[in-house]
Amino acid sequence: MTMNHRLFSFIADQDGPWAITSQTTWVGEPLPVAGGLHLVAGAAPAEGRPWVLRGITSHERYVEREEKQALVARQQGLGRPASTCAALIPIRKSAAWWALTQDERRQVFEAQSHHIGIGMNYLPAIARRLHHCRDLSENEPFDFLTWFEFDPALESDFDRMLAELRATPEWQYVDREIEIRLIRRGG
Amino acid sequence: MTMNHRLFSFIADQDGPWAITSQTTWVGEPLPVAGGLHLVAGAAPAEGRPWVLRGITSHERYVEREEKQALVARQQGLGRPASTCAALIPIRKSAAWWALTQDERRQVFEAQSHHIGIGMNYLPAIARRLHHCRDLSENEPFDFLTWFEFDPALESDFDRMLAELRATPEWQYVDREIEIRLIRRGG
Repeated sequence: MTMNHRLFSFIADQDGPWAITSQTTWVGEPLPVAGGLHLVAGAAPAEGRPWVLRGITSHERYVEREEKQALVARQQGLGRPASTCAALIPIRKSAAWWALTQDERRQVFEAQSHHIGIGMNYLPAIARRLHHCRDLSENEPFDFLTWFEFDPALESDFDRMLAELRATPEWQYVDREIEIRLIRRGG
Repeated sequence: MTMNHRLFSFIADQDGPWAITSQTTWVGEPLPVAGGLHLVAGAAPAEGRPWVLRGITSHERYVEREEKQALVARQQGLGRPASTCAALIPIRKSAAWWALTQDERRQVFEAQSHHIGIGMNYLPAIARRLHHCRDLSENEPFDFLTWFEFDPALESDFDRMLAELRATPEWQYVDREIEIRLIRRGG
């Protein structure tokens, strides 16, 4: 077992450290309803769970050097004590997206949709970790899992950020999206 | 099981439809010696085999639209009857490569190294399929597996193509590379 994990499993359960407060299917097939979530490093068996999603952190696919420097200077990590709200947003993009070339995807992603720019506006308040799934196997249910953590006072900012992203040309390529909102249990 | 496979396994064995004629370690840790190879769609167990490597075909990471059109117009598929020579080249790139941003990687890959341009010069004679491994799990032994097939009469062209690629700035980021040459058995 490496100590430097890149693979993470999101395990739906009846309980768990994160309580699921809502599960909204924006497009495509829903996921079975669950009450709580465990987020663990490494692989996890799916037996007896409503669902288990897994993803792997990886190198940036679109960010350029100046953007990366600006992001690194502003972003904060997961696990901040005041960040008791979270969201897990699994997304799959269409075959049309994956048939685009790198320059075309970057064009839609940033030049047309300002994906990096929109996200930057909400840093450092909203911490984020992106997990890739598409190339874990041939038949993954999603292409990306994004995990967000933020202070409950910033929930309306988070809602606005999602609305801005969903209004972009990039989102026309999203063919499955589920928004799972959570709060941290205990204290 | 999907009929449209993206995951492929390269199974080293004592026999198999491809006979291994040489196995050269250019940089990094060698692989155990084997006599033959099976190339199969999907996953395969590693037990009892000298080694099994797996990779998944995916969308292009660097190719732009004009380059893709030029490639698609020229390239030919695997399995041509005269292509009785093959090569499997597993490669791993360094942490320094993966820490580059997309624009920096593209700059090294094509502007400095002409990777696409060099490969294009050898189409359609040399057929090629690229498999990605890096994001299959946390601990894959290689980042890429490239499989080539060509007519034995073109072996010196193939050698020259590899020499040209290995002389590029991109190859300074290669920290493990093994060249496995094969010929098709029977026929």
